[in-house]
Amino acid sequence: MPTIFTKIINGEIPCYKIAEDNLFLAFLDINPNAKGHTLCIPKMEVDKILDMEQEHFIALMTFSRKIGKAIGQAIDCKRVGISVIGLEVPHAHVHLIPLNSMQDATFMHKAKLTHEEFETVAASIRSKIQ
Amino acid sequence: MPTIFTKIINGEIPCYKIAEDNLFLAFLDINPNAKGHTLCIPKMEVDKILDMEQEHFIALMTFSRKIGKAIGQAIDCKRVGISVIGLEVPHAHVHLIPLNSMQDATFMHKAKLTHEEFETVAASIRSKIQ
Repeated sequence: MPTIFTKIINGEIPCYKIAEDNLFLAFLDINPNAKGHTLCIPKMEVDKILDMEQEHFIALMTFSRKIGKAIGQAIDCKRVGISVIGLEVPHAHVHLIPLNSMQDATFMHKAKLTHEEFETVAASIRSKIQ
Repeated sequence: MPTIFTKIINGEIPCYKIAEDNLFLAFLDINPNAKGHTLCIPKMEVDKILDMEQEHFIALMTFSRKIGKAIGQAIDCKRVGISVIGLEVPHAHVHLIPLNSMQDATFMHKAKLTHEEFETVAASIRSKIQ
């Protein structure tokens, strides 16, 4: 089922892109828990991550690991959290969240960034991808 | 560094075990967000999940996927969430959480189960592992 993520994948809605390959896209969460909060999504429309074929799921987690390590190098944080919830947008997505306190993991407190700050953060994370 | 999880792995502290192989252990979270909340951990002591070697990380996520699918079949929930935070116990662990509302994902509301309820839930999840 098409969601807002399909429009982002198709370029109909802009995003602060972190990385892209033929299967997956990573971009900054526009309503982040913390600066650097990134979403990794499969380009294929699939709702529940555990319904993905094992090989596809593993590829998504490998992609997410690579991006998560870059976030950890680019953003000042204690560690990078990984979270899959999916109650709001029915298109599988992996949250990668720079964590400094438990509050950053609750999705109840949000950071506000300007357009320029999003651009700077995205460039910083991109520069650390290996 | 040894944590409470090392004592669980070594059998020095009991757990409601869900599954175990030579590399990983899955058991019920004793302070669950929701009934069926399970932890998957590597037996090797490693703090940050993103510091795990790629092959080891992938194996943990494959193990967690298998357990997560069993939880989704055993527990009445909208979907099974995946969460890695790690600010409290410095031994990598994947939370698998049956989600019915966003509240179940926040770690701020806890379910209370009796010993018998934990036993029943664990047996139910174990019976669904494929």
